[in-house]
Amino acid sequence: MTFQQAPHKLLVIPGPIEFDSSILLANATPGTSHVSPAFIPVFGDCLRLLKKVLYGEKPGNQSFLIAGSGTLGWDATAANLVEPGEDVLVLNHGYFGDSFADCLETYGAKVTQLKAPIGGVVSEADLVAALKSKKFKLVTITHVDTSTGVLSPAGRYAELIKQNSPDTLIALDAVCSVASEEIRFDDWGIDVVISATQKGLGVPPGLSVVLASERAIKTLEARKAPVGSYYISWKRWLPIMRAYEEGRPAYFATPPVQLVYALQAGLKAIVEGPQSLEDRFAAHKAASNKIKDGLAQLGVGFVPLGREISANGMTAAKYPEGVTAADVLPKLAELDIVVAGGLHKDIATTYFRIGHMGVTAVKTERGDLDKVLAGVKTVLDAARAKK
Amino acid sequence: MTFQQAPHKLLVIPGPIEFDSSILLANATPGTSHVSPAFIPVFGDCLRLLKKVLYGEKPGNQSFLIAGSGTLGWDATAANLVEPGEDVLVLNHGYFGDSFADCLETYGAKVTQLKAPIGGVVSEADLVAALKSKKFKLVTITHVDTSTGVLSPAGRYAELIKQNSPDTLIALDAVCSVASEEIRFDDWGIDVVISATQKGLGVPPGLSVVLASERAIKTLEARKAPVGSYYISWKRWLPIMRAYEEGRPAYFATPPVQLVYALQAGLKAIVEGPQSLEDRFAAHKAASNKIKDGLAQLGVGFVPLGREISANGMTAAKYPEGVTAADVLPKLAELDIVVAGGLHKDIATTYFRIGHMGVTAVKTERGDLDKVLAGVKTVLDAARAKK
Repeated sequence: MTFQQAPHKLLVIPGPIEFDSSILLANATPGTSHVSPAFIPVFGDCLRLLKKVLYGEKPGNQSFLIAGSGTLGWDATAANLVEPGEDVLVLNHGYFGDSFADCLETYGAKVTQLKAPIGGVVSEADLVAALKSKKFKLVTITHVDTSTGVLSPAGRYAELIKQNSPDTLIALDAVCSVASEEIRFDDWGIDVVISATQKGLGVPPGLSVVLASERAIKTLEARKAPVGSYYISWKRWLPIMRAYEEGRPAYFATPPVQLVYALQAGLKAIVEGPQSLEDRFAAHKAASNKIKDGLAQLGVGFVPLGREISANGMTAAKYPEGVTAADVLPKLAELDIVVAGGLHKDIATTYFRIGHMGVTAVKTERGDLDKVLAGVKTVLDAARAKK
Repeated sequence: MTFQQAPHKLLVIPGPIEFDSSILLANATPGTSHVSPAFIPVFGDCLRLLKKVLYGEKPGNQSFLIAGSGTLGWDATAANLVEPGEDVLVLNHGYFGDSFADCLETYGAKVTQLKAPIGGVVSEADLVAALKSKKFKLVTITHVDTSTGVLSPAGRYAELIKQNSPDTLIALDAVCSVASEEIRFDDWGIDVVISATQKGLGVPPGLSVVLASERAIKTLEARKAPVGSYYISWKRWLPIMRAYEEGRPAYFATPPVQLVYALQAGLKAIVEGPQSLEDRFAAHKAASNKIKDGLAQLGVGFVPLGREISANGMTAAKYPEGVTAADVLPKLAELDIVVAGGLHKDIATTYFRIGHMGVTAVKTERGDLDKVLAGVKTVLDAARAKK
């Protein structure tokens, strides 16, 4: 079927992002039973293809795709892997670190936080010192904090955790990094990757996307306290996910069938498309450099304190001196360009955020990046001319 | 835009159901920000229109639309309204009663169950006796148990609860009854209706749909123990839902934007369509009678022990003597008709389930019901001829 999505403003916030028409068409799949022979292999495909995107195909790894937002993956991690009273270390790089800590405490974890300065990352020395001070059941790392655009050195953190506290589980909040930043699940020894569909995967929001290691599953199976949630209990979902992966019907709660079709289309485009995964990550880096270099030429600064700790799928850009959110956000919208305002509470009014993930970064023939840079130039020129 | 959904098998399970092409097209809405001026009123519409479908427009009532399956509404009820150690009475009419009880216990409730015989309903006398035996914080009622097709007299139960234990909260699991059975939220004095999109509402799965009374919200606000979930905490969602309803942006977790567009289309079709709500319920009753009378003529019996306690949106039909699931389910699929097998563990192999909700019931010009009856006749004739 030919399907052309409706004309609309260019969506360049750090998720949801622009979707390919083929993905939207998959999201309009006719009514289909969640346990039908038609649907089961589609779900199975998604569970398998996710592992490829994350370089996490080691036997025993388990994907979970559950109706919900990315946030639900925090609940999954906290409720399934941590027992009440256990210590968890949160490497906090902004808004989403604060929230993950709240979530962990809701399920009874004792949380210690290492808070990076705004725009910076937790230092290796602080991490090692914390690991030596106490035995942690789990360390959580925000890979890209969507509030600041900071990219943390997740692989290096994982290496330090392996060296200094090998029994500690590692959870990576990769909501804003899956498919836009390289994640080496098996090589790094990550135990849980938490993500969602509407960012680098390029699929409408509504699915919690998680990959768990065999060690995480064994931790679940060995726990003494009951899992503190019903809906997100992996004890209930594990047989379901295994069944879908093996091609058998199973039921716990109805999956979002249309969205699973859309995710299959999205994952296939990433894994089986003309580009390799490595090319995809390189394309995101190129897009990021183009946006950041272009903004710098317009006199715009950045929230992250260095290019090497800046996300490749988004940019957190500071308003130049004398320019305010009102000069930029609504004016860009008038040009049919939708960017996001600031989110980190301490600096929210001082910066804005541009997403450049998925088709916007990879399909350069769309011209999205040029349109964004031209739009920003127009609104900044207008703001400066006012004075 | 003209959009014609792809040819597909007729989906007549008790949810997901057949979707109108206009709803699927809405589910293919281009990438749109969850906090944009375009989207906020759409979300607000859904929150308001849901109240109309449930005759629940009393000020103080609060809709919640959260990415997840219908099951998540159980967690919402259990985690937000019940504190650990409080007594809950579950009126159990099958598989979904068992599961709701499990969910309540996960969050620390002390559950008492009144289990109806298979195909029957809890007696009024048993309910009254239970209410007099103990003070319950909450009574849960499964309106239509999708496993048995039993329709419980929810309005009458609510009346008895009001008379005998007026302080007790009432939660109605209406996943398989919203928009196919009349629910008088305000008149009956229900405190929580729990539903999902993929049944009577005729929208793809992936949204937990809940309406809570002012009394439920006050119960939440007065609770002493912290809410036992992060993702489904109404304390986090209440300001978000109020903001969307008032036309302001707010963020806790990303809503499933495309599905909210689809829900808006679905709710508008129900509330603002050519038919009144009353006509819609009458259409479901007529469809149900047509299917049930037609099946009876084919020598098929039913799981529910009487027409007056049979759902109008689905039928749980027993295989006639000598006919098995293998004679019916795959053979109907060959005729491009998808029905569901049995789900209640004690009788799963003895019956099948047909859904007749939404367009299948209301848009009689589609001819879905005739197709189903003709298909069942064909496969039963073939099964009987084999002997």
